[in-house]
Formats: sequence, C-alpha cells, structure tokens
Amino acid sequence: MDKELRIGVVGTGAIGRTHLERINTQLQGGRVVAVSDVNKEFGKSVAEKYGCKFFEDGEELINSDEVDAIIVTTIDAYHEQYVSASIKAGKYVFCEKPLAAEKEGTKRIVDLEMAGGKKLVTVGFMRRYDPGYKQLKKLVEERTYGEPLMLHCAHRNYGVDESYDNSMPVENSMIHEIDVLRWLLDEDYATAEVVYPKKTKYAHEKLQDPQIMILTTKSGVRIDVEAFINSHYGYDIKCEVCCEEGIVNLPEPANAMVRTKAARITPICEDWSQRFVEAYNVELQEWINAVKAGRVDGPSSWDGYVGAITASAASKARDSQTIVKIEMEECPDFYK
Amino acid sequence: MDKELRIGVVGTGAIGRTHLERINTQLQGGRVVAVSDVNKEFGKSVAEKYGCKFFEDGEELINSDEVDAIIVTTIDAYHEQYVSASIKAGKYVFCEKPLAAEKEGTKRIVDLEMAGGKKLVTVGFMRRYDPGYKQLKKLVEERTYGEPLMLHCAHRNYGVDESYDNSMPVENSMIHEIDVLRWLLDEDYATAEVVYPKKTKYAHEKLQDPQIMILTTKSGVRIDVEAFINSHYGYDIKCEVCCEEGIVNLPEPANAMVRTKAARITPICEDWSQRFVEAYNVELQEWINAVKAGRVDGPSSWDGYVGAITASAASKARDSQTIVKIEMEECPDFYK
Amino acid sequence: MDKELRIGVVGTGAIGRTHLERINTQLQGGRVVAVSDVNKEFGKSVAEKYGCKFFEDGEELINSDEVDAIIVTTIDAYHEQYVSASIKAGKYVFCEKPLAAEKEGTKRIVDLEMAGGKKLVTVGFMRRYDPGYKQLKKLVEERTYGEPLMLHCAHRNYGVDESYDNSMPVENSMIHEIDVLRWLLDEDYATAEVVYPKKTKYAHEKLQDPQIMILTTKSGVRIDVEAFINSHYGYDIKCEVCCEEGIVNLPEPANAMVRTKAARITPICEDWSQRFVEAYNVELQEWINAVKAGRVDGPSSWDGYVGAITASAASKARDSQTIVKIEMEECPDFYK
Amino acid sequence: MDKELRIGVVGTGAIGRTHLERINTQLQGGRVVAVSDVNKEFGKSVAEKYGCKFFEDGEELINSDEVDAIIVTTIDAYHEQYVSASIKAGKYVFCEKPLAAEKEGTKRIVDLEMAGGKKLVTVGFMRRYDPGYKQLKKLVEERTYGEPLMLHCAHRNYGVDESYDNSMPVENSMIHEIDVLRWLLDEDYATAEVVYPKKTKYAHEKLQDPQIMILTTKSGVRIDVEAFINSHYGYDIKCEVCCEEGIVNLPEPANAMVRTKAARITPICEDWSQRFVEAYNVELQEWINAVKAGRVDGPSSWDGYVGAITASAASKARDSQTIVKIEMEECPDFYK
Repeated sequence: MDKELRIGVVGTGAIGRTHLERINTQLQGGRVVAVSDVNKEFGKSVAEKYGCKFFEDGEELINSDEVDAIIVTTIDAYHEQYVSASIKAGKYVFCEKPLAAEKEGTKRIVDLEMAGGKKLVTVGFMRRYDPGYKQLKKLVEERTYGEPLMLHCAHRNYGVDESYDNSMPVENSMIHEIDVLRWLLDEDYATAEVVYPKKTKYAHEKLQDPQIMILTTKSGVRIDVEAFINSHYGYDIKCEVCCEEGIVNLPEPANAMVRTKAARITPICEDWSQRFVEAYNVELQEWINAVKAGRVDGPSSWDGYVGAITASAASKARDSQTIVKIEMEECPDFYK
Repeated sequence: MDKELRIGVVGTGAIGRTHLERINTQLQGGRVVAVSDVNKEFGKSVAEKYGCKFFEDGEELINSDEVDAIIVTTIDAYHEQYVSASIKAGKYVFCEKPLAAEKEGTKRIVDLEMAGGKKLVTVGFMRRYDPGYKQLKKLVEERTYGEPLMLHCAHRNYGVDESYDNSMPVENSMIHEIDVLRWLLDEDYATAEVVYPKKTKYAHEKLQDPQIMILTTKSGVRIDVEAFINSHYGYDIKCEVCCEEGIVNLPEPANAMVRTKAARITPICEDWSQRFVEAYNVELQEWINAVKAGRVDGPSSWDGYVGAITASAASKARDSQTIVKIEMEECPDFYK
Repeated sequence: MDKELRIGVVGTGAIGRTHLERINTQLQGGRVVAVSDVNKEFGKSVAEKYGCKFFEDGEELINSDEVDAIIVTTIDAYHEQYVSASIKAGKYVFCEKPLAAEKEGTKRIVDLEMAGGKKLVTVGFMRRYDPGYKQLKKLVEERTYGEPLMLHCAHRNYGVDESYDNSMPVENSMIHEIDVLRWLLDEDYATAEVVYPKKTKYAHEKLQDPQIMILTTKSGVRIDVEAFINSHYGYDIKCEVCCEEGIVNLPEPANAMVRTKAARITPICEDWSQRFVEAYNVELQEWINAVKAGRVDGPSSWDGYVGAITASAASKARDSQTIVKIEMEECPDFYK
Repeated sequence: MDKELRIGVVGTGAIGRTHLERINTQLQGGRVVAVSDVNKEFGKSVAEKYGCKFFEDGEELINSDEVDAIIVTTIDAYHEQYVSASIKAGKYVFCEKPLAAEKEGTKRIVDLEMAGGKKLVTVGFMRRYDPGYKQLKKLVEERTYGEPLMLHCAHRNYGVDESYDNSMPVENSMIHEIDVLRWLLDEDYATAEVVYPKKTKYAHEKLQDPQIMILTTKSGVRIDVEAFINSHYGYDIKCEVCCEEGIVNLPEPANAMVRTKAARITPICEDWSQRFVEAYNVELQEWINAVKAGRVDGPSSWDGYVGAITASAASKARDSQTIVKIEMEECPDFYK
C-alpha cells in the first residue's frame, strides 16, 4: 500500500490531461507515469510536459510492466477496446463515462469481467462523490424524512454548438442523472419517457431543447429531469427529493452573496468542471486508495451497463414519443 | 361612486363569514348589509352578530332593493342557482370557485350572461391578486427573460381527512393552478395528463397522493404541477417559470429567518388562508371598486367555464391514465 | 363608529398627498374632506383634485366643525404649532415624525396634552406597523429564543444630495431605529455614541457617510445601527436580534428570485415608500379605527419626546465623538 | 521536489493527530515519519499506530536527519521553544496559532528568524485558505465593489466550559479574525476596543459573553466582531464587507435545505473542525508544496507577531474599557 500507484492514461484530450494534473499535483498515492494517444505528436508533447513515458500503442501501455492501473479517457468509440484490454491484462481500469459507445459493448465488458472472476472496472460517474449528493444519499438512506416519493431534477448548461445533437441531452447530459439517482434511491428503473416542451430560440435547428425525461423506479418513485442545454444563464444542477415528511434539496454551491445594484446576487457556476471540481478530486483519490488496497468500490461495469440500457430506452422513448419499459437482466451476485 | 356598495352574502359558512368580516372591517367602499343561509338558525345568528338583515330565501335577498351586489359562498351545488338569479336580477355577483358544480353549469351561466348583454359575474380565483404571482405576470408579459418554455409548480397541503376524495387534487386544489397559470401565460391549454408517483403513507386508503398534473398550452409550453396534499410539513405553493434567458421563481412569503438549534430556520405557512390573506383582501377590494365603477374586470364566467373544462379533462386523464385533448369553444368577443 | 371620520390635512406636500390618496382610495372608515397649505395656490389645486374644501389657514381648518381629526404633514418647523392647536381644539391629531423640530417642543406638547387630560396625539413612526418588525416583536416579547442581548441593524439608502446634511443620518434616518428598537425591546436607552467609519466617495463633502450609532439600553442590551445613506445599491433595512438561544432576522421583502446571467438575483427595494408601503397603510387604518373608537394606541407624544431626547443625545455624541448619557424624566402614568 | 517530505510532529494532542492523519491519508507529497510528546506513553502509542518513529525529546526530533520539516502542535507554552529550535536547525516549521504564548515571544522568533536570514516559519492561521474568505479577498483586492469601508463580523460557538476564561474571546477565538481581516484588507490596525453587551445566562460566572471587539485600520476602515461563545445554537462565522458599491457576505457552507415541520431548514455547523475542514487541508497541502519548493508563503512570523500585538492591545482595551492605540514596529523588508 505504501508504494505509489503507477498509472497509465490512454487518451490525452482535455479530460485526460485534467485527471493527469489532478493526480500528479493534488492527490495522494498515485502518479501518472505513462500516456498514449492516437494523435502521436500531441501525446508525446503531453508526455514530455509531465515527465511521463509515451507509448505509441494503447494496448502496449496497458500491458507494460511499468503501469499498475489504467485510466481510459479516449473518445467514446475506443472505451470498450481499452477497458477490455485492461481486464485481459488483469489490471484495474478507470473509464470515463460511457463505459462503451453502445449498450452491447457494456454487456460484453460485464461478461468479460465476470469471466475473469475479479472486479477491475470503475466508471467515471463522478456525481456520486459530490458532497451535496452525498448529503442527499445519507438522508435518503436513513429515511430521515420517510420514503422518497418523487424527484424533481434539472440539468442546465449555458449553451452548446451544432456538434451537440438531439440524442445528447439523454446520452451525454442526463446520463449523469440516470446513474446518480439510481444510486441515490438504491433501486432500478421501470420505465422511461422523454417529452418536448416549447423549444428555446437558442437551440440550433436540429436540437430539441429543453427536453424532459421521466423515469419511474421499480417501487414507483417518479422522477422528472429537465435537460435545458441552452439555458443561457449558466451551469446549474438541481435535485429535489420529495419524501413523506420533508422535501430535501441538493445544496447550491457556496458562493458569496453580494448586495449591489438594487439586488441580492449570488453567482452560479458557468461550467461543469467548476461545479464538480471537488467530486472529481474525491472520485480519483478514492479510486487510487481502493486500487492500492486491492479492490474497487465505485460505479462498476454493471452500473455502466444499467446506465446504457436506461439511456437507450430513454432515447427510444424520445424518438417514438411513447413510454418505454426498461428491461434488463437480473444483477448477478458478482456485482452485488 | 361615493355611496357605499350594499352587499348581500348568500351562504354564511367559513369563507362567507371571512369575506363579511373583511369587507366590514378592513376594506373600503362596501358593506355587507344582508345575509342568507339554508341553515336559518345559524344564518340569523350571523346576521345579528354583524348587524345585517337576514333573508330566509337567497333569491329574495338577491332581488331585494336593499342589496346592490351579491357574494355567493354557499356549497358548490348551489353556486349556479344563485349566480343565475343574480344575472337575472341584473346585479353584479362574486362567486367563490367553482362557478358551478358541473362544467355544463358553467356553460349555462356563460350563455345566460351573454344573453343579458352585460358582464356581471366574477369568480373567486384569488391567486391572480397575490403580489408574488403579479410579479411573475409582469416579468412574463414583458418577456423580460424571453419566452416562457416550461413551468414547474407544486401545491402542497399539510394533510387532509377522508372527506377529501381522489378527484379533489385536480378539482379542488390544482384548479387554482389551472386558472392562474393560464392567466400568467395568457393562453389556453391543449392537453392534460395526471400521473401517480409513489403514494405517501399519510394519504387515506382511497386517495392517491401525490398526483402530478401535466398541462400543455396551445403554443407548446409544458407545465407540471405536483399536488401533494399530505405533504406532512405545511402549506407551500411553488411556481418556477423557465424562460429562454432566465428562470423566475414565485417568491417565498416574507418570514423572519432564525438561527437556532444548529440550523437556519424560516417558517412556512400552515394553511392557505394565511398564505393568501393579502390576495383575498386585494381581490375583494378590487371587486368593490370595479362594481362601484359599473364594470367587472376580474376572472369572468368564461374563466370559470375554461377552468371547469380543463379540470374535467384532467380528471378524465387521471381516471383513464391517458393524455386527454382539451376541447372548448372559441372565446366569444363578449369576454375578450 | 359607523359615521365616516372627516379628516383635515395640514400640509399638502408629497407625504401629505400620499396619505390623502391612501385614505380616500384604499382605507376604510375615513375621508379627507379638508386641506390647508402655506402655498395657497398649490393647496387649492390639491383640494380641487380630491374634492376637498380648502382652508387658507391651518388653525381655521383644525377648528372647523367640518373636521373630526387632523393629519399634520407640514415641514418640521410647523409641526408643534398645528399639533398644539389640535390639542387645544380637543381633536385627535396624527403628526408625521418628528413631533416637533426641537426636543423642547416635544416636551411642550407632552405637557399640553397632559394638561388637557386626554391622549390625542399620534406620531407617524410607521415601522411599528411593518409585518416584519411585528414578527420580531412577537418573538422578543414571548422570549421565544430567550433574552435579547445585542442588535445589529442597518439603514441604507441609495444616495442623497447636498440638502441632506451631517445631522440627518441620526435625526432623519436612524430616528426610525431609535423609535422602533425601543418599542421592540420595550425599554429605554441609557447611552448613545456615533462613530465614523471610512467615508464613501459617493457622499458629498459635508456629509460623513457611513455613520454607526451605538445605543445601550437600561438593562444593558447593545445596539449598533449602521446608517449608510449613499450605499449606492438600494434601500435596505436590516435588523438582527441576537438572543440567548437564537438569532432572529428581519425578513427580506418577498421578491421573485431569478436565475439569469450566471447568478441568482433577488431585487432589493429602491426607496422607502416601496419598502414600507404596507406599514403606512396599516398605520393609518389603525389610527382611523382607533380614533373612531375614541382612543389612540399608536406612538404617543411621549414616544415623540423620547425619540427627540435620544436623537439629540446621539447628535451630541456624534459632534463630540464621546459616549453621551441619555437623561430624561420618568414616563408619567398618563402615557403608560 | 519529487521526494516525499519527511515531517516530524511535536505534540500529539487532538490537533496534532488530525494533522498527522490528514497528511498521511489525504494530502500529497509529505509523510509524518516522526512524533514526540511530553506524555511519552501516549506519544509512543500514536507513533505505533501510524508507523512513525517516536522521539523522547522534541529537540532531538527537530535535529534528526530523518526529519525534513516540523509541525508544532504542543500546548501554547512550548510553541516558542520548538519553533526556535527549528529555526536554529535551519528547518521549515509549521506552528499552530499562537506563534508564542506571549507577544514578546513572537518578537524573539521574528528576530531569530531574521538573524538566520531565511524565512522558515509558517503560522497556522487556516482561515486564509477557506474558499469563502478567498472569494472575499479576490473581490476586495480587485475593488470589484469599490473601497471597503466597514466590516461586520461574528464568531459564534455553541458553548464552552469554565476552562474558557474571559481573555479567550479575544486571544483564542477572535485572534482568527485579527489575522484574516488584516490579510483581507491588506493593511494594519490602528486601534482596538472591546465592549460588553448584555451577558447570556449560558456563560459561566467569570466569562463576559458576548463581547464585541472593534478594530479600526490605519486607513480608517471600521470593523466590529461579535464573539458569542455560548450562542447556544452552533458554530457560525459571519463576515460582511461593506464597500462603496456593494455589500459582500462570506458564503454559508453548502448544506441541503429541507422543507419540513412548517419550515425551510438548513443545517449550521456544530463545530470549527467541521466548518474549516477544507481550509485545513488546503493550508497543509500548500505548506508541503511550498516547503518542497524551498520557500514559505503562508502566514509568517511577522503575521504571528502582529496578531499577538493586536490581541494584546484588544485585551488591554477590554480590561480598561477604553480605546487602545495599537503600536508596533514597521514591517521589515524581510517579511514584505
């Protein structure tokens, strides 16, 4: 446990470099010692800057004796390939969400991991590590205010360009709610629905924005999540848990309130990295600690699979404008 | 205009007496001079207490030369009868909501009033007079934050007994949202839906509580209203208007915040009379002022009719668990 | 009690006309039937506009058979004269603060009123009627959070011009705190002090702004009141009552919170008439009701006298930059 | 820079062990490898638990080749001795506040450190690392709302026992404000005053509680700090900076707001370790980083000296109930 964990990062894009910086300058017990990237010139420059070894080939990095554990931060299309390679190498791997580009891929990873007989995969659903959600989780778990009955949530961004398509409010943004609310309530979803309110003029032609996703859980809790990607005011996350004896709200970030210009004004975050900076730190620190202790306890392959199945059902619901039943296998004991 | 308006109250139950007290001790320009009630002994005692004349028969009161204008606060079943009698007598009449017990009755009143050629009826949708909703109305009307796209609302009571049945969240509680949100957005509804989240243990056997009503407007604004009648914490009304450039919230009532017992604590109202006391005052004062000026400008028979049609569609949606299209006649010029 | 109270207003400046409008269009039971003003042309135009009789001479108005009660809203210099005339005429009189321009004048009024043997005078300290201060008063009176130990208050205006001189933060602005805090705590002051923080660039040359007034009560409660007259952001009143078991805050006015431009924004009032509009309504309605019932129960001549004595001590403290002991006669039984 | 900093802790009381835990399980780049304590049995058990070497003698630890840098967390009386020994050994030393038990001691340390020619000492004024104060600092530094003119602060604890004497509100509690406000405003104090409001029944016989300390800065900013040590409701820190164009408030900690029992309720911290947990983490991490880079940049010996001089003046002001001028030497270039 005392030896520093030697980490290899596959994919040196923005999020990959952020994780690298975080691990090498703020967190304890691990060090990024190797990187790889399909863009070799760029990958090499990152390696040089941070004093890491550069591997031309991601799988070579994964299999290297110099690397104890892997972080996969490539574009989505390559997640399955490198996660699978890590499992085959018997190494712990942290993969940014989604676990795979298609739900079938998440299932293949689950099967591969189970065949290997050891849990090795962690998916980067960082909201579970946010101090605010943790407060909610504790209150829900202890049933401080009785049974949860309904959740009202919102996921708002300032705005997006045309590269953000109509599938992404579900697949890319609300996928975070899909994971964190299931974790919060500790149960799976039964149905999904996605409806279209009036469209904002700030959304590009091919994007229906806002969208509202409605999920029900197996026990009957009803969840509505507003995705408002061109909210035109900031990055804002809301989660209101309505219980039998009280309504609990996700805390607002702690910002200085100012009385000025005939108003009381409290800043709202402008982007997600600012909003969840602490969650990212805690997530990776806990991963390093767990891996060094020879286990993983964060969001698993199974969570990645359930997220993919649910998002896929929600997407189908959106495209068909119907309510879609969510069907998946029983959770194997391996993941319980 | 200088003469005091002589008002007759038909129905001396709780709300009738509250209006009487309000008019005779707080408001200006009117005086309740006559009352009637089916419970004659009780009606007489009220008349005596407040120095009014007692009429054994409501229609006699309505037609009396001593009465200039009528307030109808009987049980719902008699609303249509006394409102119609007032119209026939050519007198201004203020009727507590609903305008009639059945939607057909509201249509008959509309027809009778139009036949008479003069607008005489006001329906007691008092939320339009609440200072908070007025702030929202101004911001929406002026499009300060652009087009409204979605509304998230909640209507919560502390709790109810078995006399409150499963139709009442729509017909009795959210009827207020049906009226005030249509006024706020200045457009009519297109569809209604009512869904059931998980039921609270505090609801009696025959009441599904909470319920969520979803309305869409003709232009596509999507509204969700949570009715949580056994919220077990207080009387609480929320209205969040999501516009293209800002999210506007109905203000919380101004209560003293106290730091005590390791918490910041701000009281929430315990019942509706406390929450909307100012709205009731403004509503009746404006009615008295308008009537003395020979006009009415509050919620009309037509508003009562539209409310009834919408609530009826929502009830059908609830019972069938489908989305119901709301169909009604065009608004006649008479009411524009 | 049923007859409308016929009111005469001496002084038809801004506040006088506001009171007139209020009484004749919003409040119940009284009517302004007569006005007088030293500027006769202007006074006549006001009389004409509101259908009142114009009196060339204030004392003639006061003594007229057509007038039951008087409101004095002249400039401060004439308050004593018209209040005294009203007392001599045996009529109820409502005088805007201050009761007299000099503390000696307030004492003469007290003596004159006592000599007449009947309480006739009410001083316009309207904050006692503000719903927020009333909440505080109730919590203090009932000792809900134990004994009050300290108060932290602020009185902020957007800005003033050169007509507002260095004596006015105490004499004109914090005079409201002098009255309302004494009423809130139900005890008199022992000492006064006024200190100068760093001066804002927005204050004109001869005005030291902000100023902080420190009062102690006879039982030892310590009060600090910040007067920040060129706060450059709005009209804002704070009052924090620190008790043995909890800290109570004067509620903020109920305004709609908006999420926009990367901030949560709640409006603050821009001037005092907006902030205390309800307090003015309640104050005058209660005065009319009381006078019709043959009594007065608002701020008395004695309260006007104590306010003047305290403000005078605070002014002396400010000019000498020392702590000044506040000395006054015992409150006569007449005023208890 | 890559080598782990080997840290020795002198004094294994509560705060010493907390720092040890923090460094060895949460922070990066340092490790506590040695401890010492006058209570040898207890010190040894701590050493054993955390796998550190135990030194019977603090100075032996300080001079050991196995230790790169020192943390002093003994009782106040020994601070000077171990900080001085560290300076003599030429090693970086982090000392919990106060730097020395008496102001003379802080001056001796300043002189010793200057004689050595290298800045080695950091004092544990952790509030400078609190994210909230950092927000305030940025807004003040950039004069976002103009010049600061006044500060209203509060420092409230739930309660204390008889071991907390009448000097401690200044010397032990508000010493934090003395440091952090001077850092916030970037200037020194001119005068100190301490006044006594009415005493709470929850304070023991020999403790005057609450106390209010008033500081003025050389440029004329006026600061009031309420110390309310038996507030009987929680641990609560307030700081309101009144500037020429806006009033800035220290953010409240981010806690979940709950609507329950007819109130909106947000928890307040119960003690300081909970409130400033993040500040402690950042403080020690920044210290480790700086020391490894061969410098120190946190609160210096000079800051410890100024804090001691100011607290001493405030204590004198409290005991004499007068305003005391604060006199100290010019800040040497060495510390600029």
